[in-house]
Amino acid sequence: MTVDSPRPETLPDALPSAPEPQRPAPFDWLDEAAARRRSAGLVRTLRPRAADEPLLDLASNDYLGLVRHPRVTRAAADAALRWGGGATGSRLVTGSTALHAELEAELAAFCGAEAALVFSSGYTANLAAVTALTDADTVIVSDALNHASLIDGCRLSRARVARAAHRSPDAVRAELAARAEPRALVVSDSVFSVDGDAAPLAGHAAACRDHGAALLVDDAHGLGVLGPGGAGALAAAGLAGAPDVVATVTLSKSLGSQGGAVLGPRRVIEHLVQSARTFIFDTGLAPAAVGAALGALRLLREQPERAERARAVGRELSDRLTAAGLDASVPDAAVVSVRVAAPEKALAWAAACREQGVLVGCFRPPSVPDRWSRLRLTARADLTREQIAHAVEVLVRAEPSR
Amino acid sequence: MTVDSPRPETLPDALPSAPEPQRPAPFDWLDEAAARRRSAGLVRTLRPRAADEPLLDLASNDYLGLVRHPRVTRAAADAALRWGGGATGSRLVTGSTALHAELEAELAAFCGAEAALVFSSGYTANLAAVTALTDADTVIVSDALNHASLIDGCRLSRARVARAAHRSPDAVRAELAARAEPRALVVSDSVFSVDGDAAPLAGHAAACRDHGAALLVDDAHGLGVLGPGGAGALAAAGLAGAPDVVATVTLSKSLGSQGGAVLGPRRVIEHLVQSARTFIFDTGLAPAAVGAALGALRLLREQPERAERARAVGRELSDRLTAAGLDASVPDAAVVSVRVAAPEKALAWAAACREQGVLVGCFRPPSVPDRWSRLRLTARADLTREQIAHAVEVLVRAEPSR
Repeated sequence: MTVDSPRPETLPDALPSAPEPQRPAPFDWLDEAAARRRSAGLVRTLRPRAADEPLLDLASNDYLGLVRHPRVTRAAADAALRWGGGATGSRLVTGSTALHAELEAELAAFCGAEAALVFSSGYTANLAAVTALTDADTVIVSDALNHASLIDGCRLSRARVARAAHRSPDAVRAELAARAEPRALVVSDSVFSVDGDAAPLAGHAAACRDHGAALLVDDAHGLGVLGPGGAGALAAAGLAGAPDVVATVTLSKSLGSQGGAVLGPRRVIEHLVQSARTFIFDTGLAPAAVGAALGALRLLREQPERAERARAVGRELSDRLTAAGLDASVPDAAVVSVRVAAPEKALAWAAACREQGVLVGCFRPPSVPDRWSRLRLTARADLTREQIAHAVEVLVRAEPSR
Repeated sequence: MTVDSPRPETLPDALPSAPEPQRPAPFDWLDEAAARRRSAGLVRTLRPRAADEPLLDLASNDYLGLVRHPRVTRAAADAALRWGGGATGSRLVTGSTALHAELEAELAAFCGAEAALVFSSGYTANLAAVTALTDADTVIVSDALNHASLIDGCRLSRARVARAAHRSPDAVRAELAARAEPRALVVSDSVFSVDGDAAPLAGHAAACRDHGAALLVDDAHGLGVLGPGGAGALAAAGLAGAPDVVATVTLSKSLGSQGGAVLGPRRVIEHLVQSARTFIFDTGLAPAAVGAALGALRLLREQPERAERARAVGRELSDRLTAAGLDASVPDAAVVSVRVAAPEKALAWAAACREQGVLVGCFRPPSVPDRWSRLRLTARADLTREQIAHAVEVLVRAEPSR
């Protein structure tokens, strides 16, 4: 049938799938988000560094000064040459080598845990532990300032999540007592990454035991720094090997490598192998990273004084900064933060330090727990007294007037 | 005030925080879960392999046979020796090296994208892309059989998630047309990992353009195998460099390393740097992994025929298995699956193959999209005709009678 219309321009549009010309292009909204960040002074910049970077590093998480230690880099290189550039598949298919098993056994023994399981990052280790150890019959009691990866683990889990006040066993206890769920998991960083303050692990553990709850501790900033010989925050608190306590650690900080691990009772580790999605559906950690972590762990066992040295450097940094009139935190481990009101000032301060040869971290909203920006300084076991004094001198000199 | 009671044994218990003796120990429920897995025949076993494993490998994702290539392992070793065992911090603090920037530039150029951003794993790259490119005003239209990392990305996002029938542009189109949200992101694997079937990317892209939606493609199993010289599924579909299309890839399959990357328009990559939690709060990829991926990428550029060879091996494997009467899939890339009804049979079959020197993957519920278990075989560009014939012979001979 044809229509002979005298006024074709008034016919309704009959195209079956007309494009929608009113919509903006799919990613136009990203430009608006970028403009908002610019006007708030919150744009972050990637600065690739050179291999021979001359800056004094007080920004990395290389707490024991091992990331460029010849034994660590040699162990990484040897592992790559012997085992290949990657693990070739997920851990349950082809991605488990004898080297992975060695690292897991030595890491568990070092920390006093029954067993360990290595992941490709600390982030995926935390996602695994939180999701696999909880279900719809669980409440998760989570410290208000936990690391992003623990928070994402909570969001991914099927459990109800109760946020507890920062570092408060009383708040934890109240949530546990009030719960309706048969199961509970209390989750906390051992050392909080921004300010370096430590969690009251003994208090949390007592609350857990009184209320039939398990405790999950992210010891990313404690391993290698806290406890006897750097065996971590659980060892320091007398909780290593406890049947109802699980730790996650990173291999990328004190151990100078990449990856993460979960440590705990054997039945917990076995459960993760069977059910943790970020374990089952991720490629295994590359052999070079496994080798580097093993190399660093063996070195730390031979030189346990590195742990105490990192803590001592942290205290000295904090003391000198405070003596110079700066608002420095008192470190529980090897992280010292200096509070700054305005993010622009923090950024300018860190930039001025960099110009004078000292690299410090700069944390601004939304990467901080409150409205305060921070300079973040990390102690390293291999910093000399002269380097510490020089760093503090530069920090004081570089402070912008407002 | 004291109470002098004649019947102290009847006083109510006044302990302020009495333990709860009725509760089971916190991790007892894991034993029940383990018992259920055992009775369902679904226990998974980690089998650490030796460096000189004599098995013929048809289970890894080393599609181009590069994971042990001397140039790749040498590049990994050199990077560790030059840059250190790890990246030392998150990418925005100290974890970006000039080597990361090189890999990002070369990867983007190779795939025809404007820019690229490297992550510590493909899993975290997918979490980043899905969460950062969506918000509460977005609907995510997700293929029903997408990879676990995409599904977890959907769960972590603030968006509404609509599951679309597997490989159906019509289903995608219907969800896009019916949506109330101003924004939409269509998410699909390019090659689905279990059966190796390819997504209808041209159809998805057309649906997206008609409805103002963006398209996110996980090209983990396409990079290095599909497209001219292995440039990936987007290049194969004529979508490389499109302003409304983003790809994620892994460095751990064709590129013989570890890690992942997001590729797309520069404003998308910049947005991820500013806002993706698994980028901001994770340690950067270790230099050795960056080096290995760069080495493999450069090798692939010199030897583009490796991509076509991997596809040809896949076709030959499938043809020979089908000719032998097995229920083998027709590969769109380099993955061939053989369907098996019972998980116990699949397990016994894979074990029998291993005993006869051939390593194949065994996928069982819940790692499969339906009730079928599978043997999963991966083609490698460096498999010889003799090895293919031998593998098929072993598979046929090793099939359990039921």
